[in-house]
Amino acid sequence: MYLSNPEQRQDAQRWFEDLRDRICAAFETIEDDHAGPGAERPPGRFVRTPWNRDGGGGGVMALMRDGRVFEKVGVNVSTVMGEFSDTFRHQVPGAADDPSFWASGISLVAHPRSPRVPTVHMNTRHIATTRSWFGGGADLTPMQDDAAAVAMFHKAFQECCDRHDPEFHHRFRDWCDRYFYLPHRGEPRGAGGIFYDTLERDFARDLSFSRDVGQTFLDIYPAIVRRRMDEPWSDEERQHQLVRRGRYVEFNLIHDRGTLFGLRTGGNIEAILMSLPPLAAWPGPE
Amino acid sequence: MYLSNPEQRQDAQRWFEDLRDRICAAFETIEDDHAGPGAERPPGRFVRTPWNRDGGGGGVMALMRDGRVFEKVGVNVSTVMGEFSDTFRHQVPGAADDPSFWASGISLVAHPRSPRVPTVHMNTRHIATTRSWFGGGADLTPMQDDAAAVAMFHKAFQECCDRHDPEFHHRFRDWCDRYFYLPHRGEPRGAGGIFYDTLERDFARDLSFSRDVGQTFLDIYPAIVRRRMDEPWSDEERQHQLVRRGRYVEFNLIHDRGTLFGLRTGGNIEAILMSLPPLAAWPGPE
Repeated sequence: MYLSNPEQRQDAQRWFEDLRDRICAAFETIEDDHAGPGAERPPGRFVRTPWNRDGGGGGVMALMRDGRVFEKVGVNVSTVMGEFSDTFRHQVPGAADDPSFWASGISLVAHPRSPRVPTVHMNTRHIATTRSWFGGGADLTPMQDDAAAVAMFHKAFQECCDRHDPEFHHRFRDWCDRYFYLPHRGEPRGAGGIFYDTLERDFARDLSFSRDVGQTFLDIYPAIVRRRMDEPWSDEERQHQLVRRGRYVEFNLIHDRGTLFGLRTGGNIEAILMSLPPLAAWPGPE
Repeated sequence: MYLSNPEQRQDAQRWFEDLRDRICAAFETIEDDHAGPGAERPPGRFVRTPWNRDGGGGGVMALMRDGRVFEKVGVNVSTVMGEFSDTFRHQVPGAADDPSFWASGISLVAHPRSPRVPTVHMNTRHIATTRSWFGGGADLTPMQDDAAAVAMFHKAFQECCDRHDPEFHHRFRDWCDRYFYLPHRGEPRGAGGIFYDTLERDFARDLSFSRDVGQTFLDIYPAIVRRRMDEPWSDEERQHQLVRRGRYVEFNLIHDRGTLFGLRTGGNIEAILMSLPPLAAWPGPE
């Protein structure tokens, strides 16, 4: 247990912003390089929209729409502070007696146009109450079987975790599998990845791990995208992708704690729901 | 307060099934008659799929997909019985001391292909515990401003309510407006209609009112559909419709008590989510 100081918090916030800038640049380079289906479109670009939060802080939404490779990507960085509500403070570590909090983080969801390129989610955050900790993770959602992409993703995060603690990968991969699960469908949301929370060893080590998670994402996901982005796809593959995206919507609106927390506490609605796919289908029973 | 007997319950169930048959026939006739956009497709037809519920009872899903006029329509009739769970019985009138229940009802959601034809929801049900009652309603969701359709719909249900009780329309229209509201968006789901629950005057009068609600729906909605189904529409209107349908998904997955109850108690997932639109969009901030 530790409590981060203002300088440390600024270091965390700067890292989230720096990671955002490098991810956006990497995704725009993919857009520039693309020569496959969709290359007749202009390369996608991120548009950044700042917003302020009532009560303290705010963030920047970075949104790419209608790119060549990416149909929609949202990258949010927000840094917010203030006091938790009376009902919520009892659910947050270290906030029961003092509702003050400070939180900064990055979250990303990418929805590629091609059904052969997996959807991905990545998030890391630093939160401080009377205690402070890091949390986050990354998980891959292929829209069709793609054992090679899944293996690449898990290997990258296994190596990332192993650089920090031999227990991490096992624990955080299991945690991810339990979290990204649709009980009403009896099926996982995707192929998993890692998920961690309340990591509170010491600030430097926890930031170092969280930086490595972000860097690992930046190393592996673009490689997975480039692998199959030039391949054409069929109408049937597209339709199946839209149905799988419907499952993504179901998870985010019914089960995702971050989404529900944001919706119920009056967060920025467009930032919260930026993760939803550009188009999704519910054709009925298969 | 009253407790319906087996013969009365069968009358209610038969009415729901009869209403379903007449609605399906009316919708299929609309499909046959259509000569506007989409007329090159074969006329849509309902496919019925029976299902059984673990614990007692079951239902029939009637689903029309990819019609000329209707992109997707689900009509469910289910009749289920058994015992409520310990946690749920305390939330249901008359079930705290005895968890036995019997419930039958019809629910319908229609998603027309044309953005100029409103989406609609209708539901009526009879529930018995140690008490028994009727509930239900109907509400219209135009995908663009259509004051004439909204006026037709409200007028029909005003007249329906007035045939039964001078207080009903005022009460049930307000109830509808409160229920079909998205707090996280700060906007109503649609144009409203009526919503009622725990109607327990006496069986004959409550069934009579619920029959009239169903009949009123059958009289007015096909008239609203036929009014503009032959008009062509633009890509912009279609895109706006897909965004509005996204709001429909948000309501059903985040707020709708029936959906959440079904999901959390292991109901038939395909029947519960039959209300979701065939295609919906979340392009990001407008």
